[in-house]
Amino acid sequence: MPAPERFSGVLAPVITPFLEDLAPDPVRLTAHCRWLSSHGAGLALFGTNSEGNSLSVGEKMELLDRLIEAGIEPARMMPGTGCSALTDSVELTRHAVTSGCGGVLMLPPFYYKGVSDEGLFRSYSEVIERIGSRDLRIYLYHIPPVSQVGISVELVARLVKAWPETVVGIKDSSGDWDNTSRLLALSADDFRVFSGSESFLLRNLRAGGAGCISATANINPAAISRLCEEWRSPEADALQQDLDEVRDCLQMPSMIPGLKAVVAHFLDDPAWETVRPPLTALEPAKKSALIAKLSQRGFTMPGLAPGGE
Amino acid sequence: MPAPERFSGVLAPVITPFLEDLAPDPVRLTAHCRWLSSHGAGLALFGTNSEGNSLSVGEKMELLDRLIEAGIEPARMMPGTGCSALTDSVELTRHAVTSGCGGVLMLPPFYYKGVSDEGLFRSYSEVIERIGSRDLRIYLYHIPPVSQVGISVELVARLVKAWPETVVGIKDSSGDWDNTSRLLALSADDFRVFSGSESFLLRNLRAGGAGCISATANINPAAISRLCEEWRSPEADALQQDLDEVRDCLQMPSMIPGLKAVVAHFLDDPAWETVRPPLTALEPAKKSALIAKLSQRGFTMPGLAPGGE
Repeated sequence: MPAPERFSGVLAPVITPFLEDLAPDPVRLTAHCRWLSSHGAGLALFGTNSEGNSLSVGEKMELLDRLIEAGIEPARMMPGTGCSALTDSVELTRHAVTSGCGGVLMLPPFYYKGVSDEGLFRSYSEVIERIGSRDLRIYLYHIPPVSQVGISVELVARLVKAWPETVVGIKDSSGDWDNTSRLLALSADDFRVFSGSESFLLRNLRAGGAGCISATANINPAAISRLCEEWRSPEADALQQDLDEVRDCLQMPSMIPGLKAVVAHFLDDPAWETVRPPLTALEPAKKSALIAKLSQRGFTMPGLAPGGE
Repeated sequence: MPAPERFSGVLAPVITPFLEDLAPDPVRLTAHCRWLSSHGAGLALFGTNSEGNSLSVGEKMELLDRLIEAGIEPARMMPGTGCSALTDSVELTRHAVTSGCGGVLMLPPFYYKGVSDEGLFRSYSEVIERIGSRDLRIYLYHIPPVSQVGISVELVARLVKAWPETVVGIKDSSGDWDNTSRLLALSADDFRVFSGSESFLLRNLRAGGAGCISATANINPAAISRLCEEWRSPEADALQQDLDEVRDCLQMPSMIPGLKAVVAHFLDDPAWETVRPPLTALEPAKKSALIAKLSQRGFTMPGLAPGGE
C-alpha cells in the first residue's frame, strides 16, 4: 500500500443515521457516503456533526468495517479518532490506520479544561508513538467553541516539528480568521489548513489553504467542491455567495438535526431525522421553515438514493 | 442482595495510580481504597479527580473487578459512569450495578454544548431504561466548570419525579451555594445533596445536605469524616476551619497532580506522581512548596500503607 496522500478540497463530517433503537445504521450511512463521494466530498466520519462523540469506540470501529466491506474507499476517509481517554484514541486511531484510512481528524482530549500545551503535546505524542506507523496521517482538530480545549498555533508548530511526516494538517473551527492566517503562515512543508466552515473557504483557498471540512457539505457537496476547483475563476465570489446563502438557512445550535431533517426530506425517509440524546430532533415548525427557505432558493440534492433495507 | 442504601457522609473521588506505561495500577489503587475506607470515606471511583475521563470503559470495568476481587466492598463504591457516548454510559453503569456498587455518579454527556434539558432528560432516561434494574442508584454529577454541560435544578426535579427510586442524589460542584440551596429545597423524598468540596460541608450539613464528595478527601478523609459526624458539636466551625486550611494548600488547576504528589511523598513512592496526559505532574519546586506548607501545619496521613507488588 502506498503512503496516504494528503487531503485537499472539501470533506463532509458525515452525519450518522440511526435505527429506531438508536443503533447506528451502516446501510443508510453507506448510501450517504456514496452520494457524498460521487459529488466530490471526502469523508470526515465521526466528527462533531457526525455525533461522533455520542458513539462508542466499538461502534465507530464496526461502522468503519461495514463501510469498507460495502466498497467505500478508505483512502477517502478521515475519521475522527480523538477521544477523552488516551487509550480510546489509541485504539480507534490504530483501527483507522490498519483499515487504510487516508488520515484521521484528531480532537485533543476534551474533558479536562485549562490543560497545558505540554500536556496536549504529550497526549498527541503518546498516541503517535503507540501507533508507530508510517501510514498515520493526523489532521489536528481545533474547535474551541465545542471542545473547550483548543490547540494553540504554538502547539501546532511544535507538533509539526516533532512529527513532520505524521502531523500534516489541521481543521480550524475556531471561527477566527486571524487564527487561520497564523496557521497558514506556519513554516511547515505542505501543511494542510482546512477551514471548519465553507464561509471561510474562498478566503482560505486564496491564502494558500487546502479546503474545508464543513457540516453543510453533507447536503451541498457539489457546490462546495466546485468552488474548491474554480476558486481562481471570475465566478468565485458568486459561488462563495451561493454557499453562504445555503449555510444561512441552517443555523446553529440546530445544525445537526437540521442537516438530518434536510436529508430526511429529500429522501422522503423520516428515519434520517433520528438523533442520539443529548441532541433532539428539529421541531416540526422549525423543520418546515428550514425546508421552505431552502426550497425558495431552488435547493435540491440531486441523485440522493435511499439506503434502507 | 438487599437494595442499596443511600450514601451520606464523605466520599473521595479516588485518585488513580498509574504504572510506568500509563496503565492503571490496581494494586496501589486497592491499597488506597483500603486506607480511605478505614478513615471513613466512601469510594467515588472514576470521578474528575480520578482522571476517570482519561480511562476507557474497559479499563474502568477491569479496575472495578480487580478492586472487588481484592476485597473492597462494592456497597461503598459510587463509580463515575457518565460518558460522552450513550452506549459507553450504559455499558459502564450496567457493570457497576451488576457488580453490586452502592450507586453511580453520573455526568451528563459532555461533548456537545448548549444542549437542551429535554435532550439531557432523554439521555439519563435512556440509560435508566436500558439498565432496567431496581438496584440502580444514580447520583447526578453537576460540575459545569469542567464538563461545561450542567444539570439545571429544573432538570433535577424532573428526573427525580420521573425516576424517584433511581435518581436519589446529586453532587453539586458548581461552587455556587445558591444552586446547592435550591437543590436542598427540592421537594424530593430523601434526596441526597453532596457538596463538591468540603469548603461547603458544614453549611451543607446544617441546611439538610448529605455530605461531600471532595478531592481532598483523598488525603484528609478522617478530618472530613469527623466533621460529617460532629457537625452539631460546638467544635464544628473550628473543624471546618481546619479543613479549609488543608484545602487551601492544594490549589487548582493543579489539584490532581497535587494530591498525587502528597500521597507519593507520605508513602515515599514516586510512582504515585504519574498522571495521564493531558495532565502533567507537578514541577519539583511546586511539589516542595506544597509539602512544606502541609508540613508546617503538622499534616500527616496516618496509616498509609504501600500497595506495591
